[in-house]
Amino acid sequence: MKIRQITVTPVAFHDPALLNAVGVHEPYALRSIIQLHCDDGVVGLGESYGDDAFLALLGAAAEAITGLDVFHLGLIEQAVARVIGGGAFADSHGLTGGSSSSKTVLSVFSAFEVACLDAQGKSVGRPVADLLGGAVRDRVPFSAYLFYKWDGHPGAAPEDGDDWGAALDPDGIVRQARRMIDRYGFGAVKLKGGVFPPEQEIEAVLALRAAFPDLPLRLDPNAAWTVPTSLKVAEALDGVLEYLEDPTAGIEGMAEVARQAPMPLATNMCVVAPEHLAPGLRQRAIGVLLSDHHYWGGLRHSQQVSALCANFDVGLSMHSNSHLGISLAAMVQLAAATQHLTYACDTHWPWKREDEDVIVPGALSFVDGAVPVPQGPGLGVELDEDALARLHRLYLDCGLRQRDDTGYMQRLHPGYTPNTPGW
Amino acid sequence: MKIRQITVTPVAFHDPALLNAVGVHEPYALRSIIQLHCDDGVVGLGESYGDDAFLALLGAAAEAITGLDVFHLGLIEQAVARVIGGGAFADSHGLTGGSSSSKTVLSVFSAFEVACLDAQGKSVGRPVADLLGGAVRDRVPFSAYLFYKWDGHPGAAPEDGDDWGAALDPDGIVRQARRMIDRYGFGAVKLKGGVFPPEQEIEAVLALRAAFPDLPLRLDPNAAWTVPTSLKVAEALDGVLEYLEDPTAGIEGMAEVARQAPMPLATNMCVVAPEHLAPGLRQRAIGVLLSDHHYWGGLRHSQQVSALCANFDVGLSMHSNSHLGISLAAMVQLAAATQHLTYACDTHWPWKREDEDVIVPGALSFVDGAVPVPQGPGLGVELDEDALARLHRLYLDCGLRQRDDTGYMQRLHPGYTPNTPGW
Ligand SMILES: [Mg+2]
Ligand SMILES: [Mg+2]
Repeated sequence: MKIRQITVTPVAFHDPALLNAVGVHEPYALRSIIQLHCDDGVVGLGESYGDDAFLALLGAAAEAITGLDVFHLGLIEQAVARVIGGGAFADSHGLTGGSSSSKTVLSVFSAFEVACLDAQGKSVGRPVADLLGGAVRDRVPFSAYLFYKWDGHPGAAPEDGDDWGAALDPDGIVRQARRMIDRYGFGAVKLKGGVFPPEQEIEAVLALRAAFPDLPLRLDPNAAWTVPTSLKVAEALDGVLEYLEDPTAGIEGMAEVARQAPMPLATNMCVVAPEHLAPGLRQRAIGVLLSDHHYWGGLRHSQQVSALCANFDVGLSMHSNSHLGISLAAMVQLAAATQHLTYACDTHWPWKREDEDVIVPGALSFVDGAVPVPQGPGLGVELDEDALARLHRLYLDCGLRQRDDTGYMQRLHPGYTPNTPGW
Repeated sequence: MKIRQITVTPVAFHDPALLNAVGVHEPYALRSIIQLHCDDGVVGLGESYGDDAFLALLGAAAEAITGLDVFHLGLIEQAVARVIGGGAFADSHGLTGGSSSSKTVLSVFSAFEVACLDAQGKSVGRPVADLLGGAVRDRVPFSAYLFYKWDGHPGAAPEDGDDWGAALDPDGIVRQARRMIDRYGFGAVKLKGGVFPPEQEIEAVLALRAAFPDLPLRLDPNAAWTVPTSLKVAEALDGVLEYLEDPTAGIEGMAEVARQAPMPLATNMCVVAPEHLAPGLRQRAIGVLLSDHHYWGGLRHSQQVSALCANFDVGLSMHSNSHLGISLAAMVQLAAATQHLTYACDTHWPWKREDEDVIVPGALSFVDGAVPVPQGPGLGVELDEDALARLHRLYLDCGLRQRDDTGYMQRLHPGYTPNTPGW
């Protein structure tokens, strides 16, 4: 079952003005959609980053793996490594930690690995979860992912806006949480921090605790704090947070915080590539890994990382960037088949317009804060060619070619500098 | 694709009088052969230990998993854990380290996991390697596994003997090595030690070095030595051994030796279950893990352990007990699809009579010390029902019901005590 041809289509979709430690989301999020055409007519789907530099790597890798068998994932990974192994793809926001050549190879490989597994599943008539050891749960719980946000993008047309309103203080955050929980039923809540001074973010978390006494809470300042500040926040939120995510930068800083913080520390910044696992675990820097198949090398490698975490008594959840339905389906199939998954996963899904996606609607839904695992073959989702064309058109028209939260913020507020490590 | 019925057949096959640190192999080795009948007519094959106590666990687990889908390995593992999770199966030789309930669950699960993967592969028309990410090599190298041995079992009939002759000194070991290498083409050599005082075994290794200047050499005394003795041997064989296997007992003892030994230490005794991984790796007790799918929970879990070793810069090879063709096929499929496999694997294969097996001959062969990966669906081997009946008859007639190297030795030499830790 050989790969005959691979199409990589860049797409864009509307993104609200969500704030974080390095700036603000631009009006459009970029993604790449992979269609992997096999010689027997099966088409496997993948989704990943849409930055220019990443698209170039995808293109080079696609050429290198054409002709290989979709079941030969190890050989495909080797071919990807051969063609792009030398360089490192540096994202321009740094929100998923540093870049390295191993992380770059695994990121590029991941997009194709998912597409190969989708093709395998379609070919043998089995959901992808069955190719990963089979589902051990039939629904995958996600958390409400709260953001400080502006009402809208400055100067945007009304039809490009969103109806979430602003959230710039504890009341706004609680209002956002209530609406998101009412709509999706989430049973856990995460606040993206690193935007305001820590005292204000502590206040917001305490307001969430008062409004939702029973829901597990998380705070993620994207390494915006020093070690002493991290410890002060950790102490102030003792008994309130289920975990504190990336309070400070680097394995050593995290290990220092972890030694004294009363709650586990989670990361998608200091342990983001294979070479970080041994030092991170040896130094006991983290209690929870937020895995992400997009840069951990796809679904099979992500399961291996999960097994490793289980062996080291480290919890597991999932990190998310802005994404569309193919990525959500991949996350759900992976989570379904992953025994060691100890927290509700993150997703940006609620920030996406309901009518903007590349998949045929209906396959994925949120019920009581969880996505029921699709039972169809492969990822369980179908490409909507017209929708793909529309979002590709949006990509062509929007003019964005790489995610740049900091540059966008600086164009709006000259003199802005990222808050890492600001406090 | 549901499991309709499972047959577990105990078998026995002739085993030469191979010496080790706890005694001597009995005249017959015991194994269990699993036939997993699916509702669509496909039959999956597995092979594991044949001790009475283990057969009882297999029986209980077989009942618990009947009716489940062969693709739902996670649920099958959970069902096995539920039915036998409380207890620990203690083998009576201790040559693969201690027992624990997790190791027992994984051992029992493994036998069925392999059979499920064989059934999956047969069902989708793919070799098992393709269900594990695809082969990254088309041949799997093995090492020559040398044993001190008696000429034959005392009092045995001539037709129950072997033609290898005795090997009780350096000359005998070199003679054995030469014959084994001539016949199979092995490119690496392992000596099972712990039988004679360390000085004699050092001499044997040096004799092997002189006879085979270019072949990597290994020595495995099965933890028969104290830490100081281990260090003395390590120093004496500096530059001679590619690794020293289980010189002493326990993670702490191994870590102490590892800190000063000039060569990597390997183990299939101190890190043999998930709960040993974190302490073993944190304490840097080992440089090479000898994995064994029979107790690491099958092929998928063994791949996860391999990935973990890669992350911690620990080498990987494979441990072997006396086994038949189904186990060899499983080892070969696993090794073929495992990227991080850094040494030739162990196998007892040469000690088995060529005409004694349960599989149809021809699928597995040694060429230049390696087994070409079978290309057929599933494990790539076929059950020979007549041969299975013959070896089951041998099991019934031989009277052995558990492996007991020490008891056998003591019946022959009253007063014998195992050599661990003798020197
Ligand atoms: Mg984060
Ligand atoms: Mg050993």
